Amino acid sequence: MADEAPFQFLHNEVIQYIYKSADSGDTEHGGNISTLENMGCRVGQGLKRPLTKDTARFKDELDIMKFVCKDFWTCVFKKQIDNLRTNHQGIYVLQDNKFRLLSQLSAGKQYLEHAPKYLAFSCGLVRGALSNLGVKSIVTAEVSVMPACKFQIMIQKM
Amino acid sequence: MADEAPFQFLHNEVIQYIYKSADSGDTEHGGNISTLENMGCRVGQGLKRPLTKDTARFKDELDIMKFVCKDFWTCVFKKQIDNLRTNHQGIYVLQDNKFRLLSQLSAGKQYLEHAPKYLAFSCGLVRGALSNLGVKSIVTAEVSVMPACKFQIMIQKM
Repeated sequence: MADEAPFQFLHNEVIQYIYKSADSGDTEHGGNISTLENMGCRVGQGLKRPLTKDTARFKDELDIMKFVCKDFWTCVFKKQIDNLRTNHQGIYVLQDNKFRLLSQLSAGKQYLEHAPKYLAFSCGLVRGALSNLGVKSIVTAEVSVMPACKFQIMIQKM
Repeated sequence: MADEAPFQFLHNEVIQYIYKSADSGDTEHGGNISTLENMGCRVGQGLKRPLTKDTARFKDELDIMKFVCKDFWTCVFKKQIDNLRTNHQGIYVLQDNKFRLLSQLSAGKQYLEHAPKYLAFSCGLVRGALSNLGVKSIVTAEVSVMPACKFQIMIQKM
């Protein structure tokens, strides 16, 4: 647990800070999710370089997705994605059965409403990593039973 | 490099965000350093538990400092403190010859003025970890030649 803890605790602080700033009235309502998403995107873009400098070029889109599920996820979350599915038409679903950034939220259904703010940063993270690998995408996430979580990636053809 | 990268990039984003909020006028001048310091303190407090749950009780203050220099520093920064000194009267100096959170700042002298905002979070981190180990302290940091950095810990006797 200790290895991913600094990142996880800092991520929590970021959420608290951004939502507290919003309460005090300096951010328009609804801007917080996109603030977190954009922050994640820049981190994801930054991470591409240290992670891929020793890696041979990817042979296709699926290969890039496998990289995200394995190397990228392990670097950030200290575990791999548990399941990757695709419809082979530009939609990929990445399932993490124990998503680290949800692990501090209680499992009760009443906490489900808070899940989006704990997922926005990571959606951006994936979008940023993919964009620096030449893949433009829209990334969304959903939780059914905590702390399991699904990220859906829709490739945007350019 | 990749292992500490997510934390480092997120830390950079936090600094950018806090200073940008301040520019737009919603935070009093000078409040940013303490915002970062307090954020670090809460993260440090949080990290104490995952890090020490399997560790036997510490025998004295010096023992706690060694824990901070080794286990704690390695958890957050993926390296140990390079040098620990003490005057045996409640002052400890921890030297990190290649402090990770400064590594993205250029080495030029003109960047030295930006160093405090890159150190505030980590000062809080140490203060928070120590406080949860029963040691009240004031932590400051200084840079002479980047990216080397010294953290000075003054123990506050209770």
